[in-house]
Amino acid sequence: MRIGIDAMGGDRAPAEEVRGALAARQFLSDDDRIVLIGKGDLLREHLGSPGAWSDFIEVCHADQVIGMGEAPVEALRTKPNSSLALMARLAAEGKVDACISAGNTGACVAAAQMRLRRLRGVHRPGIAIVTPTFYGPVALCDVGANVNCRPQHLLQYGIMASIYVQAVCGVANPRVGLLSIGEEDVKGTSLVKQTRQLMKDDPAVHFIGNVEGRDLFRGVCDVMVCEGFVGNVMLKLMEGMAEGVVKALLAELSAGIPSQERIIQKAGDAIAAKYDYNVYGGAPLLGVGGIFIICHGASNYRGIMNAVRVAKDFTTGRVNERITELLGQREGSQDA
Amino acid sequence: MRIGIDAMGGDRAPAEEVRGALAARQFLSDDDRIVLIGKGDLLREHLGSPGAWSDFIEVCHADQVIGMGEAPVEALRTKPNSSLALMARLAAEGKVDACISAGNTGACVAAAQMRLRRLRGVHRPGIAIVTPTFYGPVALCDVGANVNCRPQHLLQYGIMASIYVQAVCGVANPRVGLLSIGEEDVKGTSLVKQTRQLMKDDPAVHFIGNVEGRDLFRGVCDVMVCEGFVGNVMLKLMEGMAEGVVKALLAELSAGIPSQERIIQKAGDAIAAKYDYNVYGGAPLLGVGGIFIICHGASNYRGIMNAVRVAKDFTTGRVNERITELLGQREGSQDA
Repeated sequence: MRIGIDAMGGDRAPAEEVRGALAARQFLSDDDRIVLIGKGDLLREHLGSPGAWSDFIEVCHADQVIGMGEAPVEALRTKPNSSLALMARLAAEGKVDACISAGNTGACVAAAQMRLRRLRGVHRPGIAIVTPTFYGPVALCDVGANVNCRPQHLLQYGIMASIYVQAVCGVANPRVGLLSIGEEDVKGTSLVKQTRQLMKDDPAVHFIGNVEGRDLFRGVCDVMVCEGFVGNVMLKLMEGMAEGVVKALLAELSAGIPSQERIIQKAGDAIAAKYDYNVYGGAPLLGVGGIFIICHGASNYRGIMNAVRVAKDFTTGRVNERITELLGQREGSQDA
Repeated sequence: MRIGIDAMGGDRAPAEEVRGALAARQFLSDDDRIVLIGKGDLLREHLGSPGAWSDFIEVCHADQVIGMGEAPVEALRTKPNSSLALMARLAAEGKVDACISAGNTGACVAAAQMRLRRLRGVHRPGIAIVTPTFYGPVALCDVGANVNCRPQHLLQYGIMASIYVQAVCGVANPRVGLLSIGEEDVKGTSLVKQTRQLMKDDPAVHFIGNVEGRDLFRGVCDVMVCEGFVGNVMLKLMEGMAEGVVKALLAELSAGIPSQERIIQKAGDAIAAKYDYNVYGGAPLLGVGGIFIICHGASNYRGIMNAVRVAKDFTTGRVNERITELLGQREGSQDA
């Protein structure tokens, strides 16, 4: 397969994107290629001697760059030659089989929706992020693609994310929890109540009921479904808190056991590594007619490298085919 | 003042409620009284010899108890003699000046709204919880009273929570952030966009713009405003995560420095104490015509004791008077 990487998107682009592409060689079969999209001269400069990469990396020149703060649709319209817009076009034309970007998330979602369309039967694409926990990975979906959710959208996130964690994390029969503010039926918004009923009645989800924020860390479900606004807030809250709590604990300890600073630092690093978004290699936009992996803006080369692994697993696990098998036959599904 | 405590509400009731009432003596003036509401015989048994408490605690008998899982309005209707329903009635009759409960949150909100009504000009009451961070306390409002927010509701949460953190945390000119999923104007739901405009135009809030989940730990604002559903999810996510990350880090460390387990445990306890909801003594339901402090269901005696302190500060700081001064004069405010 041919895997496109938007080499200009992330906060550390193109250095980490290029390094990630080089490191991703380990995941590629003989006929796989990485297509690095961005300013050609700059990319070749970062890539170094062609002997090290020209057998598995191609450079595809794109003049423009979409910034993190730009309005997504406007940016795509005014910058047709941006690395992101070009990558999405290549995907639409079948010239790459997967897209990876650590750039502007909104622009990624917009580009994917415009160029790749939706899989048959899917109402709205959703971003599924795999969160590491002590009890194993939990996929949280949606974390920001869709801030105007209907019950059918949430139901489909449950179905699509189940297929995804099966394929990529090897979870056999993923338990799906619906995020609410209490386990009882009576609590939550009307969106939650209606979704709950849909999930209860649908054999395509292994629904375990409502869950709460704290349940993400308690091993009660493998997939947690929520609106994009809430999911995005959760994602960023976890990021801020991991940073904060670990910092505070290390400070306490260093004061208590000054002689052991090195060991304490190592333990801190071990925890940080466990929670490192780079290990999970980005989050797929589930439901689009192709493979689009969105990486954290601050991704380092490991984030990009692991996104290549995710793209490979996505293909091997036939995620899109299985989504279409389950959702493509449903009546009136394209209208909602 | 007379401070009512629902002695039957929390997970550890009545033992911790009684112990908290006894420990709260330190915060009381000579003419302050605590009114413990619940099963009279049981409470007297826990209180022990009257010599130790009869000068500042009164026991008020209530037959029934509302459970954590009960539907709020239904429970209040069918259990008029529950400790919670009785406490709210006493408040409505002016027989207690403040209410404290670690019981069913939904039932607390419903009881307060039914019996205490709203302050003049307030659209919807909201629960404000003070979150400890490295940069000082941040009040998050609403965390669960209102899951159907309008822009005016969120604006008022910003105003009311500002008054509250001024009075209780001593923050001079609280900076208010509006929770969204990006700092830019274009991101977020239509609720966020409309609220943003209202806040920009209102001199009663010191509005600093949109903030994200991670900003809770970055010292950028003193008040963070959001819908009740999102706020409640955040609250519970933080609880679950603090538990989880600290546990994992301690495990790493204990393996690395087996000889120092006691010191490591101590550091863990110090962090846990910093994040302990019991220190903050519960969250006020802002905007009701009285004082209603809702404590965490798992509160221990310190949670109850500190809720008494919060009730005192609330009165001393003239929180309700100042809310009425700011909101009571606004046109058409009662209708929305």
